[in-house]
Amino acid sequence: MTDKAHTTRTGTSTTDSVRVRGHDMINDLVGRYSYTEMLYFLTCGSFPTPPQVRVLDACLVTLMEHGLTPSAVISRLMADSVPEEPQVAIAAGLLAIGSVYAGTTESCATLLQEIAEREAKGERDIHRTIARAYAAQRKPVPGFGHGTHKPDDPRTPRLFEIARDNGCHGAFVASLLALQVEVDQAFGRHLTINATGAIGALLLEIKVPVAAMRAFSVVSRAGGLVGHLLEEQSQHSARAIWAAAKRDIRYTEEP
Amino acid sequence: MTDKAHTTRTGTSTTDSVRVRGHDMINDLVGRYSYTEMLYFLTCGSFPTPPQVRVLDACLVTLMEHGLTPSAVISRLMADSVPEEPQVAIAAGLLAIGSVYAGTTESCATLLQEIAEREAKGERDIHRTIARAYAAQRKPVPGFGHGTHKPDDPRTPRLFEIARDNGCHGAFVASLLALQVEVDQAFGRHLTINATGAIGALLLEIKVPVAAMRAFSVVSRAGGLVGHLLEEQSQHSARAIWAAAKRDIRYTEEP
Amino acid sequence: MTDKAHTTRTGTSTTDSVRVRGHDMINDLVGRYSYTEMLYFLTCGSFPTPPQVRVLDACLVTLMEHGLTPSAVISRLMADSVPEEPQVAIAAGLLAIGSVYAGTTESCATLLQEIAEREAKGERDIHRTIARAYAAQRKPVPGFGHGTHKPDDPRTPRLFEIARDNGCHGAFVASLLALQVEVDQAFGRHLTINATGAIGALLLEIKVPVAAMRAFSVVSRAGGLVGHLLEEQSQHSARAIWAAAKRDIRYTEEP
Amino acid sequence: MTDKAHTTRTGTSTTDSVRVRGHDMINDLVGRYSYTEMLYFLTCGSFPTPPQVRVLDACLVTLMEHGLTPSAVISRLMADSVPEEPQVAIAAGLLAIGSVYAGTTESCATLLQEIAEREAKGERDIHRTIARAYAAQRKPVPGFGHGTHKPDDPRTPRLFEIARDNGCHGAFVASLLALQVEVDQAFGRHLTINATGAIGALLLEIKVPVAAMRAFSVVSRAGGLVGHLLEEQSQHSARAIWAAAKRDIRYTEEP
Repeated sequence: MTDKAHTTRTGTSTTDSVRVRGHDMINDLVGRYSYTEMLYFLTCGSFPTPPQVRVLDACLVTLMEHGLTPSAVISRLMADSVPEEPQVAIAAGLLAIGSVYAGTTESCATLLQEIAEREAKGERDIHRTIARAYAAQRKPVPGFGHGTHKPDDPRTPRLFEIARDNGCHGAFVASLLALQVEVDQAFGRHLTINATGAIGALLLEIKVPVAAMRAFSVVSRAGGLVGHLLEEQSQHSARAIWAAAKRDIRYTEEP
Repeated sequence: MTDKAHTTRTGTSTTDSVRVRGHDMINDLVGRYSYTEMLYFLTCGSFPTPPQVRVLDACLVTLMEHGLTPSAVISRLMADSVPEEPQVAIAAGLLAIGSVYAGTTESCATLLQEIAEREAKGERDIHRTIARAYAAQRKPVPGFGHGTHKPDDPRTPRLFEIARDNGCHGAFVASLLALQVEVDQAFGRHLTINATGAIGALLLEIKVPVAAMRAFSVVSRAGGLVGHLLEEQSQHSARAIWAAAKRDIRYTEEP
Repeated sequence: MTDKAHTTRTGTSTTDSVRVRGHDMINDLVGRYSYTEMLYFLTCGSFPTPPQVRVLDACLVTLMEHGLTPSAVISRLMADSVPEEPQVAIAAGLLAIGSVYAGTTESCATLLQEIAEREAKGERDIHRTIARAYAAQRKPVPGFGHGTHKPDDPRTPRLFEIARDNGCHGAFVASLLALQVEVDQAFGRHLTINATGAIGALLLEIKVPVAAMRAFSVVSRAGGLVGHLLEEQSQHSARAIWAAAKRDIRYTEEP
Repeated sequence: MTDKAHTTRTGTSTTDSVRVRGHDMINDLVGRYSYTEMLYFLTCGSFPTPPQVRVLDACLVTLMEHGLTPSAVISRLMADSVPEEPQVAIAAGLLAIGSVYAGTTESCATLLQEIAEREAKGERDIHRTIARAYAAQRKPVPGFGHGTHKPDDPRTPRLFEIARDNGCHGAFVASLLALQVEVDQAFGRHLTINATGAIGALLLEIKVPVAAMRAFSVVSRAGGLVGHLLEEQSQHSARAIWAAAKRDIRYTEEP
């Protein structure tokens, strides 16, 4: 193993200072940068421009709260079971930010990157080829379709509008919109670009690495779960959720 | 169970809208508020003033990154064990935000609230009474002392300065400073107000409920762990950490 | 830090052997001891007698399965959210084995130990004193009462019977039964000794340290959750649970 | 959604009984079956034969303890951070039982099943074909190789011996041994069948579904982590591990 494997650029603390990625944390970062700016800095290695901050904030705020999602239900049940440790309720809810409910951000971004690379090599009609391939295999296209928001996810046009207002409505957003046309055609019906798909495109526009995208969903939802946790302390919805589960999933001894 | 137990004010989604605490999420919140403002709103039920936002951002940024803390070490080990699921690495690190490494924020805030209540009832010399009680029992005073930052936690004066600059240097900060004098006296040596103690006072100043304080530490650290996760994907420090643990904790068959 | 802090007696592996607490794991333990015996050995440092094994197995089996408990509901929701990683579903369910749903095992055992110590010092009528103190403060007595099993937890007499059949019906079980009489008297109504209370007494009888009791509940439930996980893969109850939660916890904008 | 989606065969509790998969839990299962037998029953739907129990116990005991593995290190760090909640330390360690450190059990079993299916269709030289394909792609063969145990994992022959002694040394074990010969040939050097690979074959022999195999590793390790947790309460190795991590992963500001 080389020396390189034994170093970190992230941060360190000494008796009288905290260094973070080459900066004096206390004198240069605290009080000067917002949480959102620091999140970008710790992830991307540079500070975001004001338009990038606004786009990132819009993405983070969009995923913060969506009512009683599975992660919120899990957090509420956990808050009732382990009331002494709020971090357990939040962490448990965050474990559920997986491939099913948030992974499409990174899958959609990966698809858009692949399209860009193939375009750069001169390939043509890529959006059509891809849409038809998914349709032929009856596989869901990452970033398309939504269980609740039909026919259109209302968050998507708002996110594109914010991108446009901040000069971040570039090639990736355009590519996603081009894919939309071909997806509808190939599937023979309208499938909305969902919020996680739109966010995948926006995060690419502001140069967030794909490897950080699910983690950004986690950060966003962490903030949202605080609200559920606080409400649970006075409302105790967990017992009602549990009773509903027991009532609706009936025990049977039939094979 | 009353109807009250079966309601939530947090949020809901319908086919074409998302409502959050009485607001139209998409048209009124996304693009208008930052992540930090939304966190405050979801927790406190009202939007923060600009000075409150700056103080909250300073608190959140301060706890984001502190080098290889136990939570960062756990996240890195987990990222190596479950590389496919970044949310597992982050959530595992967040589980460690418990009484030992972050709980003093809420304990310190609780102590400051208790002091304020006893002062309101006309009791005198409360800071001295409390400091002496802890000293007599040789118990650590919540918000005082630090393993690395000696004699003084350099984050604390910076946090107080930001509070002052934003008009949030009120009775709780003053009370914590008064407690500092008595703690040094009672223990016969200087014990620094640590960053989590200072943050406890500042969050009280901006009217964050004590019940949300550990959750705010969790949110802060969630952002910081993203950086560790990204770095781990290229550096693989987990194997070095594991090797160090095996080397330093030797197996013995002696009783 | 002394050398002692840097050693472990638990286990180690070399190129050609695995040592566990002074034993050759491969040649002396694997194939010779059951999982239950090894659990006892790793926890208590000695191997259990056959009657102790039967009592421990009865305790572990009793807590394995109890239908759709909060931990089972959480595991099922998580299995639906992170289908690729079964360990996440099980671990998430286990996080819920806290003070509310399993902690009474250790609390009841702690209470029985306290009674034994006070008896050893010659104090009299301790059971009555304690029962009356809880009743006066209207606090639940650890190990008494149950939400579903009324008027009596049917698991308790079976556990005591197994203890008796195996010669493990000693002073702690007798003490718990004596407490039962006084609790009913002090509260003016019958409160059943619940299964976790009975298990607390039985584990004391077979010399399991109180510090291991919650962990034993975790191990027991880990086995039970495997069944839920397997069933969830074919039944997908998680979507029904989620739908029930959204239907029963209605969103309101009223204050 | 059909009615089928809203039922569970796993278990339920009523005021005076607990039913588990068609059985009276309290009168028919508790006190009659061991933890290992119940684990098999809850997973496979039938009770194991005595030889199957011995093989399953050997598999579970083998994975219980392997010294300071990443999951043990994580559990110890967590026990230090959240000392009040032992289930958090165990659950955190179990989250690490993923594709890297335990997943080869199921991958190896899947490979053995695939070989059996191709053999049933009359295909020949399958072991050679597969071994060469992995070698050509320089991919690790699931169930082969080990970082510590070289040249041979000492647990493997012992597991095969136990299978033989219990009449469970059938076609899957034979197939894995046949694969061993071809793997050594194709890679041009000896690669040991590791313990997780051997366990994959043994669990197939006793008819455990592949979908349950990682969960069985989780159950096994849950028991092992109890020992680490108990030791940590008196030894506090977590601080030494943390110090080692900070010492060995140096902070650098070089790019």
